[in-house]
Formats: sequence, C-alpha cells, structure tokens
Amino acid sequence: MNLEKQIDFYFDFTSPYAYLASTQIEALASRHGYSVVWRPFLIGATFKFTGRKALIQHPLVWEYSLNDIGRSARLLDQAINFPVKFPILSVKAGRLFYYFQDRDDNQKTAKEFASAAFQAYFVEQKDITDNRVLGEIAAAFGLSLEEVENIVKSPESKERFKIEVDAAIERKVFGAPMFIVDGEMFWGADRLQQLAKWLETGGW
Amino acid sequence: MNLEKQIDFYFDFTSPYAYLASTQIEALASRHGYSVVWRPFLIGATFKFTGRKALIQHPLVWEYSLNDIGRSARLLDQAINFPVKFPILSVKAGRLFYYFQDRDDNQKTAKEFASAAFQAYFVEQKDITDNRVLGEIAAAFGLSLEEVENIVKSPESKERFKIEVDAAIERKVFGAPMFIVDGEMFWGADRLQQLAKWLETGGW
Repeated sequence: MNLEKQIDFYFDFTSPYAYLASTQIEALASRHGYSVVWRPFLIGATFKFTGRKALIQHPLVWEYSLNDIGRSARLLDQAINFPVKFPILSVKAGRLFYYFQDRDDNQKTAKEFASAAFQAYFVEQKDITDNRVLGEIAAAFGLSLEEVENIVKSPESKERFKIEVDAAIERKVFGAPMFIVDGEMFWGADRLQQLAKWLETGGW
Repeated sequence: MNLEKQIDFYFDFTSPYAYLASTQIEALASRHGYSVVWRPFLIGATFKFTGRKALIQHPLVWEYSLNDIGRSARLLDQAINFPVKFPILSVKAGRLFYYFQDRDDNQKTAKEFASAAFQAYFVEQKDITDNRVLGEIAAAFGLSLEEVENIVKSPESKERFKIEVDAAIERKVFGAPMFIVDGEMFWGADRLQQLAKWLETGGW
C-alpha cells in the first residue's frame, strides 16, 4: 500500500454520522485512487480532554440532529432506523474489529464486520453491545459465539483496542467521523464533498 | 412578499460560518424564487439553555475549525482574514441592523449594512464593536457618527434587538447560521447545498 494514497477513517460504532459516512467512503476513495484505513475508536474518550459532550446531551440540538440525520440519510439513499438503545459504549465491536484485522493481516474482513455491525445497529436496530448479536454478525466471518465472548473480554483485545483509542487521541482526533489525508483533517459526514475535492485537486 | 417563499436566515455577526453563508444565501435563494429575511441574533444567548459553548472554548476543536473556516472560504472563493478581536458581543451591529430595517420599512439597507459589517469584521479585521468603525460603515447609509452612537445605546434599540433575540430562542434557533424554510431547519454553512436541494424539490 502506498502510504501517500491513504485516507484514515476514524469512527465510533455509536455515531450515526459515522454510519452514513461508512456507506460512502470506500467508493469515494476508490474513485480517486485512494485506499481507506478504518480506525474505530471511542468518541466518549475524547470528551474528557475537549470538554465537549455528546449531541444527545443537548436536547434542542439533538432534536434538530435527529431530523438532520434522517434527512442526510435520505439524501444519500441510505436506510436508517434509529437505534432503540442509544448511545452505546462500542468497545466490544471495536475489539472485534481489530481482532479481524490482526487475524487476516489486512482490513478486508474487519471492514465487512464493521459494515455489518453498522447495519445491525442503525438499520436493524439491534443492540451491538449484546454478545449474542455480535455472535450472529461474527458468524459470517468464521467465529463461534464462544469465540466472540472470549475475544470481547480478553485482556489482549482490551489492550489492543485501548492502544488504538489512545493513538487517535494522540493524533488529536476529537470527532466522528473524522478523515485524515495528507495530514489534513475532515470532520463530519458533511465534509465528504470537501474530502473528495481534496483528493481530486490535492488541496486548495 | 409571499410567506410561502421565504427563508429566514438567523445569524450572529461574530460567527465566521454565518459570514460565509451570508455571501451565498441571496443568490441561492434567488435562483429558486425565494426571498431571504435576515435575522441577526445573539448566539451566546442560546448557550444558556442548550448547554453548549462557543467553538473557541474547545481548543482542539477550535484549532480544527480555524483550518476548516479557511478551507471552506477558499472553496467558496470568499476572502477571510480572521478577526483580531474574536469573538465579539455583536449587540451594536444587531441594533443598527434593525434600525435600518425599521427606518426603510424593508431589509434592503439593513442587508447592505450587514454585509458591510461582515466585510469589515472578517476581511478588513476591524472591530465592529467600536462605535467609530460602525460609524464608518453606517455613513454609507446616511447616518452620522453621533446618530450611530445614539442608536446603539438607546433603550428603544436595545429593546428592539432583545425582542428579536428572544424570538429566535422561542423558535428554538440554537446555532448560527441557521436557515428555516417551510418549518425545516438547516444549521450551518455546510447545509447550504441541502437547503438548495430543499428549495428545488420541496423536500425529500
């Protein structure tokens, strides 16, 4: 992989805008000859040092955002059925993501797992903090429920994910989705067009 | 004016994204047969009930935002030279805006004044809380410095502006720029494309 042609895609499985962006980013990058490295982390871990809060903690903003999320999804022709349980602490999905990445020594399965987890959470309204739900998703990628249960609670998986979260914070990632290309940060599903133009022009 | 073809444009003179949006909204609305009612208010007055803070109070987010503002301005081909004094309490500019609106019984002069104030603040880096600066701007619209000084401190102007700020809050306007059309809210300069599509299609 040519590192100069790489987009880092930071996301949290609990972010609706990250879900929307996840449905677009691969095709967008591919059109411009870039590859994408998916990097799940925990947005909540960044609030401590930014002083920000989750959108849902601001009722008026949240009321607007729920409408905006639906409107943005319809514009992208993407289904969304707002999760029954929201927000969630997405550590288990994050740990499984990196497990798949390490197991296969590439991101193919990990990305497929992430897309399936987003679909389960934001379309099928399943609780992706539930081991059985994660087991159903991971079965398609060769894991038994018992293996899923062991992975999400293993010290190695916890440490593996923590390192990724810390690395995101170290890189000043404070929002989700966040894209970084050529050192340039693009925050939000609403920056995909600017990102595309950046890839096309090399910046302006 | 046909009320069904009207966009309400809520802004604060201290908002860089509102400045950027102000350079686009008239042409955008006009293309779709809509008129725009400009409604300056005070974003700070909304923080009390939303629990939000100004972007600048979140250093990491602000660092990103400064870059994003410049990038967004260049994409729109709009000049921006970040104000030396930022943020400001924009009550005086707000009071003058509504003075012009009432004086002329329409928004033509008020909008021209607002655009000139935005230009002075975000391009010429002038302090638009300074009576002399406001006097220079307002001179083009027939006011002397003494008249400006009287208007910005008069109880009537203060009350007039306060009513507008309260009305914005009553309408749940919590951000700037905020556009409302057909009861639908669009928050941010980055929602102008969605707004344009809304005007074109009547919603989706």
